[in-house]
Amino acid sequence: MTDSPTPSPLELASRLIACPSVTPARGAVFDALEAMLKPLGFNVLRTIDGDAPSGPVENLLAVRPGPEGTRHFAFAGHLDVVPAGDGWTSDPFTPEVRGEMLHGRGAVDMKSQIAAMVAAAARIPAEAGTISFIITGDEEGPARFGTLALMEHMAARDVVPDLCLVGEPTSVARLGDMMKIGRRGSVNIWLEVHGNEGHVAYPHLADNPIPRLVAMLAELDALELDDGTDWFQPSNLEITDLEVGNPATNVIPAAARARLSIRFNDLHTGAQLSARVTEIAERHGGTARPVISGEPFLTEPGAFSALLAEAIRAETGLEPELSTGGGTSDARFLKSICPVIEFGPCNATMHKRDEAIALPDLDALVRIYERAARAALALQESFARDSR
Amino acid sequence: MTDSPTPSPLELASRLIACPSVTPARGAVFDALEAMLKPLGFNVLRTIDGDAPSGPVENLLAVRPGPEGTRHFAFAGHLDVVPAGDGWTSDPFTPEVRGEMLHGRGAVDMKSQIAAMVAAAARIPAEAGTISFIITGDEEGPARFGTLALMEHMAARDVVPDLCLVGEPTSVARLGDMMKIGRRGSVNIWLEVHGNEGHVAYPHLADNPIPRLVAMLAELDALELDDGTDWFQPSNLEITDLEVGNPATNVIPAAARARLSIRFNDLHTGAQLSARVTEIAERHGGTARPVISGEPFLTEPGAFSALLAEAIRAETGLEPELSTGGGTSDARFLKSICPVIEFGPCNATMHKRDEAIALPDLDALVRIYERAARAALALQESFARDSR
Ligand SMILES: [Zn+2]
Ligand SMILES: [Zn+2]
Repeated sequence: MTDSPTPSPLELASRLIACPSVTPARGAVFDALEAMLKPLGFNVLRTIDGDAPSGPVENLLAVRPGPEGTRHFAFAGHLDVVPAGDGWTSDPFTPEVRGEMLHGRGAVDMKSQIAAMVAAAARIPAEAGTISFIITGDEEGPARFGTLALMEHMAARDVVPDLCLVGEPTSVARLGDMMKIGRRGSVNIWLEVHGNEGHVAYPHLADNPIPRLVAMLAELDALELDDGTDWFQPSNLEITDLEVGNPATNVIPAAARARLSIRFNDLHTGAQLSARVTEIAERHGGTARPVISGEPFLTEPGAFSALLAEAIRAETGLEPELSTGGGTSDARFLKSICPVIEFGPCNATMHKRDEAIALPDLDALVRIYERAARAALALQESFARDSR
Repeated sequence: MTDSPTPSPLELASRLIACPSVTPARGAVFDALEAMLKPLGFNVLRTIDGDAPSGPVENLLAVRPGPEGTRHFAFAGHLDVVPAGDGWTSDPFTPEVRGEMLHGRGAVDMKSQIAAMVAAAARIPAEAGTISFIITGDEEGPARFGTLALMEHMAARDVVPDLCLVGEPTSVARLGDMMKIGRRGSVNIWLEVHGNEGHVAYPHLADNPIPRLVAMLAELDALELDDGTDWFQPSNLEITDLEVGNPATNVIPAAARARLSIRFNDLHTGAQLSARVTEIAERHGGTARPVISGEPFLTEPGAFSALLAEAIRAETGLEPELSTGGGTSDARFLKSICPVIEFGPCNATMHKRDEAIALPDLDALVRIYERAARAALALQESFARDSR
């Protein structure tokens, strides 16, 4: 089947962009992907996972088994997109080529990459090894029933990749200048201080919670979490919200709230940081409610990063930076089944209006993904799995 | 006319409470007061003052002129009330006597006092001197077109009292335990810090305004404004609101806001405190927008406080405390035309559900107001007017 004529990556990406799929993605966009993968010999499992409020979520797992004893290389990504917002030059859900650019919501995050993965898979003979697609409809949303549910379906079917490439848009100025070998962890913490409401003219009858919150936040803002590591930048704490909601100028409020976001490297765990912030909050008479959205992960530089860098170099001439910066991705989940690295096109227009990918980059991406998959399937050494 | 039968203070207070007059008060409650004053020989001027958003406001000025060369004593107060709220035992706008208490919204703030003033005026012969009523329909609201407008109407008609008694509920545990010879000033200040919005994963591309606001608030909260004076308690600053309004846990917000309320004694002016807070706000990269709602006033203890204390002592046996504590009142405006003191019943149920006055207190209040007005009209010494 691999020699059947496959549409161009531009045609594949356009078909996916033409299916509106604001997170959580459902239906048509998965139908389109299934229709691309089936002719290539993939067995396609489609599932609806989870309940409200974080579900239901649509997911797709596609596997093309190689001969017994060959390796298994997985492509991973998401078909949901963030809302289009206003101010687009052309309709965000009508793919449009203007000059060298393909425009549309999802052009770089990340329908073009899924199209490029399909095109790459079409060029690799089934005999080279097992290739799979791990594709969720909820990465931009709560992500509770997306890649995590796919991993359960994989475990139930004993589908275990040796290596996994996530197609997030990791390049910055030029295609190939950066891959992500890790991501920082992330924890959001809601802080609250209670007092007693009263009239500003009678402060001795009230207990204003705001000064305690201010002192707590001043201490938290002054924390130096670490100086970074060989592979990670320093962990960082941002105060992202303050809230009292008191419309009355003459009233001392009963409660005051704030929210923190900490992005942290592998010198910490979400639980340790949560405990540290909670201790400070309680010392100032408040409470802390942490929600850990992801622990940090690191795929230490080695054979996988080397083969991906080689593929990038061969097609772009660039030496990719091995970064661990930026936001979180579903790689934080996939790291527990196999080594995972992220690579994709320039992210300048990601989540913005007039999101677009350069057509030469789309074509180069197909070749890079093909080279990387072939090299991974040809590897001799085995990879220890993160047993977390 | 003064010997015509006047209804009892209970009857007068009940008539006023029976007219719903949630701020701003209009119509019926003023009709009721006019109907009480006209038979007593008062010339009644009714006006509608100001435009939206702080108007229009209904006001009433009533003057019963005494013989040429006699003194002029003014009663001042308001007919508007704060909203009733929930949980009343009986309908808040149906006056109801249960046991020794008259219940209803306005029973202590301050329809009973206006009824007591009317009953007191009825007992004083016109020959004793000029008596006036300065009554607004907007004291609980913005108060921009209430007493201030009445003062303009008085100036236009050359109506200038020698002394003014405001009927706010100043007593605490027992009728007569406290009068107010002054009030603190009040300024509310809106603080704002601007930064640059961004993603928490890329803090170097953003500029979080919250740490600057937190440092600014910590410095403001630590201010010691003064230690108080002979007549005033220390000035006090409260942070009353915080606001960012950022629902996105992964976003560094573009702006952060807070609000202060300062109650201050006569060691300061609103302008001086505004300048001081503005300097601190700007040093932390923010801005301050002060709104001065009242400067402090003080009617220094003297003949007026002495004659009122004597009237209170005679009727209650209590020695009233000369206080300057608590919130603001329209005395902050009236102080510019003549010495002004506030005295009224216990304020425990003011602005609360089941607002009520004790019937013996209502009767005693009539006698205290009568004694005070007679003594004021009989005074020989003249009073310097605050030339503010
Ligand atoms: Zn993405
Ligand atoms: Zn009042």
